[in-house]
Amino acid sequence: MSSTLTLLFVNFILLCATTLASDPDPIQDYCLPNLKSSASRTAHLTIIPCKNSSEATTDDFVFSGMKVPGNFTDTGLAAISVNPTIFPGINTLGMSFVRADLKVGGINPPHFHPRATEIAYIVQGSVYSGFVDSTNRVFARVVEQGEVMVFPRGLVHFLMNVGKKPATVFGSFNSQNPGMQKIPAAIFGSGINDKLLEKAFGLSPKQIALMRRRFG
Amino acid sequence: MSSTLTLLFVNFILLCATTLASDPDPIQDYCLPNLKSSASRTAHLTIIPCKNSSEATTDDFVFSGMKVPGNFTDTGLAAISVNPTIFPGINTLGMSFVRADLKVGGINPPHFHPRATEIAYIVQGSVYSGFVDSTNRVFARVVEQGEVMVFPRGLVHFLMNVGKKPATVFGSFNSQNPGMQKIPAAIFGSGINDKLLEKAFGLSPKQIALMRRRFG
Amino acid sequence: MSSTLTLLFVNFILLCATTLASDPDPIQDYCLPNLKSSASRTAHLTIIPCKNSSEATTDDFVFSGMKVPGNFTDTGLAAISVNPTIFPGINTLGMSFVRADLKVGGINPPHFHPRATEIAYIVQGSVYSGFVDSTNRVFARVVEQGEVMVFPRGLVHFLMNVGKKPATVFGSFNSQNPGMQKIPAAIFGSGINDKLLEKAFGLSPKQIALMRRRFG
Amino acid sequence: MSSTLTLLFVNFILLCATTLASDPDPIQDYCLPNLKSSASRTAHLTIIPCKNSSEATTDDFVFSGMKVPGNFTDTGLAAISVNPTIFPGINTLGMSFVRADLKVGGINPPHFHPRATEIAYIVQGSVYSGFVDSTNRVFARVVEQGEVMVFPRGLVHFLMNVGKKPATVFGSFNSQNPGMQKIPAAIFGSGINDKLLEKAFGLSPKQIALMRRRFG
Amino acid sequence: MSSTLTLLFVNFILLCATTLASDPDPIQDYCLPNLKSSASRTAHLTIIPCKNSSEATTDDFVFSGMKVPGNFTDTGLAAISVNPTIFPGINTLGMSFVRADLKVGGINPPHFHPRATEIAYIVQGSVYSGFVDSTNRVFARVVEQGEVMVFPRGLVHFLMNVGKKPATVFGSFNSQNPGMQKIPAAIFGSGINDKLLEKAFGLSPKQIALMRRRFG
Amino acid sequence: MSSTLTLLFVNFILLCATTLASDPDPIQDYCLPNLKSSASRTAHLTIIPCKNSSEATTDDFVFSGMKVPGNFTDTGLAAISVNPTIFPGINTLGMSFVRADLKVGGINPPHFHPRATEIAYIVQGSVYSGFVDSTNRVFARVVEQGEVMVFPRGLVHFLMNVGKKPATVFGSFNSQNPGMQKIPAAIFGSGINDKLLEKAFGLSPKQIALMRRRFG
Repeated sequence: MSSTLTLLFVNFILLCATTLASDPDPIQDYCLPNLKSSASRTAHLTIIPCKNSSEATTDDFVFSGMKVPGNFTDTGLAAISVNPTIFPGINTLGMSFVRADLKVGGINPPHFHPRATEIAYIVQGSVYSGFVDSTNRVFARVVEQGEVMVFPRGLVHFLMNVGKKPATVFGSFNSQNPGMQKIPAAIFGSGINDKLLEKAFGLSPKQIALMRRRFG
Repeated sequence: MSSTLTLLFVNFILLCATTLASDPDPIQDYCLPNLKSSASRTAHLTIIPCKNSSEATTDDFVFSGMKVPGNFTDTGLAAISVNPTIFPGINTLGMSFVRADLKVGGINPPHFHPRATEIAYIVQGSVYSGFVDSTNRVFARVVEQGEVMVFPRGLVHFLMNVGKKPATVFGSFNSQNPGMQKIPAAIFGSGINDKLLEKAFGLSPKQIALMRRRFG
Repeated sequence: MSSTLTLLFVNFILLCATTLASDPDPIQDYCLPNLKSSASRTAHLTIIPCKNSSEATTDDFVFSGMKVPGNFTDTGLAAISVNPTIFPGINTLGMSFVRADLKVGGINPPHFHPRATEIAYIVQGSVYSGFVDSTNRVFARVVEQGEVMVFPRGLVHFLMNVGKKPATVFGSFNSQNPGMQKIPAAIFGSGINDKLLEKAFGLSPKQIALMRRRFG
Repeated sequence: MSSTLTLLFVNFILLCATTLASDPDPIQDYCLPNLKSSASRTAHLTIIPCKNSSEATTDDFVFSGMKVPGNFTDTGLAAISVNPTIFPGINTLGMSFVRADLKVGGINPPHFHPRATEIAYIVQGSVYSGFVDSTNRVFARVVEQGEVMVFPRGLVHFLMNVGKKPATVFGSFNSQNPGMQKIPAAIFGSGINDKLLEKAFGLSPKQIALMRRRFG
Repeated sequence: MSSTLTLLFVNFILLCATTLASDPDPIQDYCLPNLKSSASRTAHLTIIPCKNSSEATTDDFVFSGMKVPGNFTDTGLAAISVNPTIFPGINTLGMSFVRADLKVGGINPPHFHPRATEIAYIVQGSVYSGFVDSTNRVFARVVEQGEVMVFPRGLVHFLMNVGKKPATVFGSFNSQNPGMQKIPAAIFGSGINDKLLEKAFGLSPKQIALMRRRFG
Repeated sequence: MSSTLTLLFVNFILLCATTLASDPDPIQDYCLPNLKSSASRTAHLTIIPCKNSSEATTDDFVFSGMKVPGNFTDTGLAAISVNPTIFPGINTLGMSFVRADLKVGGINPPHFHPRATEIAYIVQGSVYSGFVDSTNRVFARVVEQGEVMVFPRGLVHFLMNVGKKPATVFGSFNSQNPGMQKIPAAIFGSGINDKLLEKAFGLSPKQIALMRRRFG
């Protein structure tokens, strides 16, 4: 097997292991995707979704990649989303997490996670934080260091750093892959028919075109 | 008990029965909320979430309230959402459904259901129909009578009648209460902080104020 | 790899993708079984349960194969059951569906789905329709166009066209593979010990033999 | 509250506790339905689905009511089905069980459990035992003392004592209320329309009438 | 209703709401236990598990009770476990959390949560942290500020502050009520038969008696 | 493929099939891991988690390997744990089981199953049997032949034969792989840091060292 194919193969295995397990009720203690098995080196063998547990090491269950903030977007947000793709140890365990840093005045735009509730713990800072329920009521206020806000599964929520120093939030999810749809990009940057968007938002073709350029 | 209280009580019971059962894996054949039990007449007694199965009748399991379209909104949509509140027979059974009618050119704006996948069956008409995935790709095309499109759980989707006659869609869900967030109203009509919306969508305070009036 | 093996392989992959995912709580937006991957062309590589989402197209999520009735059996039923084997797009999404057409006087014999509730929407016609609960009570009546009847998970149900024109029913399920056991064939056509059947139904050996020929 | 009402009330509470909990994933150690609470004695108070855990006793978690066989039916079967109605201690724990005794030549007719897999352990005797899958294949053979047969969720299965002494089977289920449909009674004793049954089984009106008398 | 009874009643309602909902797949946006409803004031009415959503406020979804450490035990641990009993807003949302502070050298003894995986985020300090799998292998090492360790569902785990200053850990769970068994107290402080404990641990009656005094 | 590799491969397939399926809600009737497929003989092909159902035989669903007790440990326990590794037929069906034999005076030390409730049926003998709940209360008593005790999911439980003859217990679980942690070995034989154990149990370094030798 060429090394390109090997790499592809390793990705397939990881994708597979990530994909096939279901969040509710694991049926083993843990399932580390096996990325370096002898199987892949022999070139003929095949998918081995879990490492033999005897090969697991403590480091497999510790994630060290979010001690510092990630890269900031232009809304002042740096988010490191940790799912089994970058932390294989949580595969099949029904949870994942995120570190979000916000510059002063920075925002995490309205978005939602299709498959998980989120528990947001304010590590530092003062964050205007909230969600919208199915009746279009907003629940939002400033949340301070040491406080926790919950965002129910699948509901639109958002953050804005309203304090005078950087803010850090640790969010955890009850799905290993909660998914995410950021409203501005999902709506205006995805290619939904212009006419439909005009009618949905009461905007002119020109305004829609502008939004499209902004988020496409 | 006064009749007002009785009514309130009946609503509580229904709410309760609707609320407490979990979608996965019912533990009885069915559970009809008991709205007319002797218990409520004696004024002292209490919650009886399921009718005794001997009181169930065939009519409890048939829904006849969507033979004709519902009332149309100003986007040309008439939707009748059927969950246990109006069709108690499906309580605890893990499914619900909707009839959506669209005038010529009418739209069902971008929205999503936090707790269910939707199977949309085109009863009549030609409907531009699609959804957006977590990577902001849109999957959309015109779907004709007799065709079925699937909207995965929690993803934004939308409809627009692009044919020359009214369209009718029968949608079914794998939750008894899928929930719904309509993007325009959830974002601009719910009361999210103006500053945050300005930054999220790149709109001016004036434009945000306009959107707020439109959907508030 | 010979083309026969390739075909076999493709079936294996599809079977696998269908088999391993669990109905509750998907952990990705969708999971299209990858049937034409470069992996299968290189002959050595292996299972790839989900297409890369960048390869997905809108057509993957639309089913067009049931615009007209299927083939009729001798009880006057034409059923097109749509699960991931013929509509890969619904893989892992927790739902599937069926189109059932009934000739005048045609029946769908007593049967049940071991793994799903069914929502039956009458597209056209007048259908005597019902189910039996765990206490052997039948809930049945004639259901008309535009009405919906629910059949709780795992309970025996049945249909008969009692109108004067063909009937069409759209059924949807809260499992991607609800399964089905048709009572006459499951009991008399499967090879259960004759003696046991005689005792169970109070029939003579001759009568059992007759039933066996009829449904074997 | 009169004592009749009290009794009714206690039944309601038990029914309620039994009904509202969902099989997957309990959210407490256990939940004993509280049948003798001060609440019921004060006549006004209300539903208390779980006893305070401090009131639980060891006997709440031991079932002693199946040391000897139950009453035999005319097919030679004595079954004691143990769910939370008679063993409150298993409420919310996701399991239940049954003791089935079979006279020599006795049968447990074809039946299925809509909501559970069954593990059948042969305590004594030689039992012809089997199930039918969704493709109408039967899997059946004689199973001896100390052996175990599994009946997958929702599939028709059956037993017949083919040995020379009484047989005893201990069955356990992965639902606190698996439900049951006995095919002969569900089909011929429930009141399904005669015409439909004639067509489904190819039987004459006279034969159907006979079956109906036998199982009605 | 006397105020004592009212208090009791409120506790019952909360217990009930906490108890009956199942972790997987909520069927509403959220479900705030209604503790001050008019129902409870009228003294006759009864269980209302969820507040009307119009009564919900933002504060219902923010937890502010763990800005500072809780009370320290004699092993140097201060844990504030947050489930729906003290934070009603997370009821039915499938998650809960804990703040654990450890003095220098303090430990969280070996324990496990029967119903949840835990994601442990080190807010500050250096913590020797680990778990044991089903094959009795330990996975443990020192975890530093900003790192995350995962403890798979139901497996024994433990913490010890090995740094030179106090440590703080934020743990989150994928169950609203994960439960906990602390090994020393569960084994030696619960009243398990002495003889059995002697045999299980190879300890003398005197040693067992000592352990019992220590943890009883 | 060499026969060693073939064996390895077969183990991988079984592991994989065992690993990827989730306990709740199977999506097929059954899924026999395919260990002898033509695929494995051609040496190139790959994972086939389920046999084609046409290859299934009755023997696949019957387990005959526990007619007699297993090998006894030095605490007088012989346990045969039956999961899909040794009984492939139960794969994906959400249940497994165990035969436990106890010599006179023999014990099954305190242990728990992270992923399942257990129903323990006393086949013969008198067994002191119990469990500990989350509040450290023990529920224990002598249970006799024909009685059943339930151990809620994830809680520590134990057995001791207090009768005058051997005892046999048939336990069944609502997970295909419940897992197990035996407290003495998990705590003292796994390699948890000595200092932590000393503090947790109040034992001296010497005592800990002794325990470690005993259970390591």
